[in-house]
Amino acid sequence: MRQNDGMQISDKLAQQVQFLVESEKLKAVLRRNSPAKSERCENSAEHSWSLALMALIFAEHADQPLDLLRVLKMVLIHDIVEIDAGDTDAFDAAANASKVDRENRAAERIFSLLPSGQGSEFRGIWQEFEASVSPEAAFANALDRLLPLVQNFQNGGKSWREQGVTSQQSRGRSQPIANSSSALWEYACSLLAEGEQRSFYSPAKENPQA
Amino acid sequence: MRQNDGMQISDKLAQQVQFLVESEKLKAVLRRNSPAKSERCENSAEHSWSLALMALIFAEHADQPLDLLRVLKMVLIHDIVEIDAGDTDAFDAAANASKVDRENRAAERIFSLLPSGQGSEFRGIWQEFEASVSPEAAFANALDRLLPLVQNFQNGGKSWREQGVTSQQSRGRSQPIANSSSALWEYACSLLAEGEQRSFYSPAKENPQA
Repeated sequence: MRQNDGMQISDKLAQQVQFLVESEKLKAVLRRNSPAKSERCENSAEHSWSLALMALIFAEHADQPLDLLRVLKMVLIHDIVEIDAGDTDAFDAAANASKVDRENRAAERIFSLLPSGQGSEFRGIWQEFEASVSPEAAFANALDRLLPLVQNFQNGGKSWREQGVTSQQSRGRSQPIANSSSALWEYACSLLAEGEQRSFYSPAKENPQA
Repeated sequence: MRQNDGMQISDKLAQQVQFLVESEKLKAVLRRNSPAKSERCENSAEHSWSLALMALIFAEHADQPLDLLRVLKMVLIHDIVEIDAGDTDAFDAAANASKVDRENRAAERIFSLLPSGQGSEFRGIWQEFEASVSPEAAFANALDRLLPLVQNFQNGGKSWREQGVTSQQSRGRSQPIANSSSALWEYACSLLAEGEQRSFYSPAKENPQA
């Protein structure tokens, strides 16, 4: 057997396969929104594929130079923690209060399935995405907010209306796009404005803090 | 408006968004196999996500040095043509006879939705995957064959039995793994052998050419 990092390849492979098999569970984690022109809920695995494809398509529109490989790694693994923590509804304040704790525990368990060096690398990439400070993380987060905006728009605002989302909430949720790409933010604003015009949103609340 | 390649950014963005919306259809293209520990068919978008994740996990096991970014681009877009051409059952000889024509027409239409430079790049990457000659393409193809092997094994050979697949056919289908990674091929052979032992396959045919 070839040796690598002091561990037999076959042992490393066994750990990596275990992680791969565990990752299959992300295909059963359902989000609140649907793919464009579809009625069913989207799962977090196919959502992650779309973000990776968007990174390839839209990288040129980032305001700062990007390490595209790092963006891809980030979007590919950013939702893995949902295998344990579930998808947290963006507009559910109670669920969001416990999100960080639940996801940190999930990251600890799931990335530990990998050989230690690789597990640390993946955990670091996930933490970078969550912190959303580096240009790559800001861009990955922008894509994560842009995709459901495009999908909901394509679906006539279906999941916004179902969840009683106002245009104000949708604008707030989309704001991270502005941190990474003025071109994508301009596009997002055009969708928000047209969504308002076409009554895709719930009426504004009297007290938006309530 | 900023200018880029002689085209207004907003026009490029409109074309890129059109491609993104079109790509959503891949989430409705169903494959014959299921995710691990699942009963439902897998769609080609979530399949593509898994290949990209596998590229990150298993890159170190490729026999030749890889441009990982190129592998990722390849697996992320390799199935896009199925939006028009459908998923071609690996064991359906008649469907495979028309596969190249159908997929070439699909590539022409779908990648042409993108701005021309990007469309050419994507078409080139897809053609490289199909040719399976470069180390990156050989590795991408190896992953494409390894994933259903792992999934079917996890599911007790469900889709092999449903389709009457023999271990001989499964071994032939897995052969491209050997072209890219001796470590992954060794692992694949162990799955094939254990699958035979555990009767996951249909009995061997008298005349395998029939």
